[in-house]
Amino acid sequence: MSDVRIVLVEPSHPGNIGGAARAMKTMGLSDLVVVNPKRYPDPQADWRAAGALDVLDAARVVADVDAAIDDCHWVVGTSTRSRKIPWPIAYPKEIAAQIAEQPGDARIAILFGREDNGLSNDELRRCHYHLQIPASPEYPSLNLAMAVQVVAYELYQAFAEVIPMPGWDRSLATAGEVEALFAHVQSTLEQAGFLDVDNPGQTMTRLRRLLLRVQMDETEVQILRGVFKALTPASPPAAE
Amino acid sequence: MSDVRIVLVEPSHPGNIGGAARAMKTMGLSDLVVVNPKRYPDPQADWRAAGALDVLDAARVVADVDAAIDDCHWVVGTSTRSRKIPWPIAYPKEIAAQIAEQPGDARIAILFGREDNGLSNDELRRCHYHLQIPASPEYPSLNLAMAVQVVAYELYQAFAEVIPMPGWDRSLATAGEVEALFAHVQSTLEQAGFLDVDNPGQTMTRLRRLLLRVQMDETEVQILRGVFKALTPASPPAAE
Repeated sequence: MSDVRIVLVEPSHPGNIGGAARAMKTMGLSDLVVVNPKRYPDPQADWRAAGALDVLDAARVVADVDAAIDDCHWVVGTSTRSRKIPWPIAYPKEIAAQIAEQPGDARIAILFGREDNGLSNDELRRCHYHLQIPASPEYPSLNLAMAVQVVAYELYQAFAEVIPMPGWDRSLATAGEVEALFAHVQSTLEQAGFLDVDNPGQTMTRLRRLLLRVQMDETEVQILRGVFKALTPASPPAAE
Repeated sequence: MSDVRIVLVEPSHPGNIGGAARAMKTMGLSDLVVVNPKRYPDPQADWRAAGALDVLDAARVVADVDAAIDDCHWVVGTSTRSRKIPWPIAYPKEIAAQIAEQPGDARIAILFGREDNGLSNDELRRCHYHLQIPASPEYPSLNLAMAVQVVAYELYQAFAEVIPMPGWDRSLATAGEVEALFAHVQSTLEQAGFLDVDNPGQTMTRLRRLLLRVQMDETEVQILRGVFKALTPASPPAAE
């Protein structure tokens, strides 16, 4: 995975720097640059970094945005407000897809602004592209480290090979196995007097719909066979 | 948007409860239930909630998971480890899509486990479905409130109508307008002696490729026309 640089511009709270480092590491990112932080280093940054102290320790602290991005080929700035002069802008998923398409040796930076004021207009004009996280219009104010987490999550999915979810541990049952179960169930319920042979109603249909919908595996069919075998009345009920 | 319940099971750090409330509100969620928190209420929860104090204040604190989910129709548990008996499991994007397909009156809960231990096996067996956030195998340990943020972000996108990004403020230039610009540029550069009429080389082709690739709008074409007009030499350079 190409390492995308995360740049925090003048963060106020050291906890957010640590939280951003942790968010990055969970998504395989490690290149953190902090521009002119108010309070850093700080024990709160370390505490919030948790198992990502290595990312925090390797972070560069620089004096201004220029020093953070001068060597970068594509610079993205996070933005919540719409601008007087519209800039190319996209949601995190699309930005991540665009980054995944950049040449392998492209250095890419994503800028995150101050907790209270975001990025300045000057800083946003330094960017090739702007990024906006979709959020509720009533309260679109994500915490800084949370914003890093969401963007890093999309980057991870764009870059990482999608790891298939673990497979099921048993083979699905065949239609024949399931039909044999239904026949077994039906005869058991008839023997128990629960189903009237002459007027069966919809019970079997509803049981079919339930058990077909759930796509049983072989073991589940065997368990149900065992259950119904164990519950089969020893002798047929007295004839009426 | 259907309100999905977020359930935090035995969180240790009050800051995470506040952080989760804020994460929820940024994505339009408000139904927060906290099961047997270690330290809550707490000023740290309020501080991290920031502008989402209303969500935090409305949160229910209950003694056990049963009380949190008994009225729910579909319960999802977050999980990082794979289980001995595989359970239906999906990534947040797919879970959000499945939730969006539930009937409108379905009450849905998503359980988030303890910071150190996650959900117990018993709690995971209470769930219809499991959810796993894609993360780096080296350090897949998202902070609790960060996990809530990622899941809420996917829910917001599944439920909210996608708000189109703000449009461009000017119409794109037509091919005719762009050709007129190129003719103007070429004659200006020829007058300035920068282009040799008899041996023009590739300069114009490269300028064409640059300016066509960028899809200029009308104003940009006008600005460039103005620039080249202003820079046209007063008189042709002395003939060689």
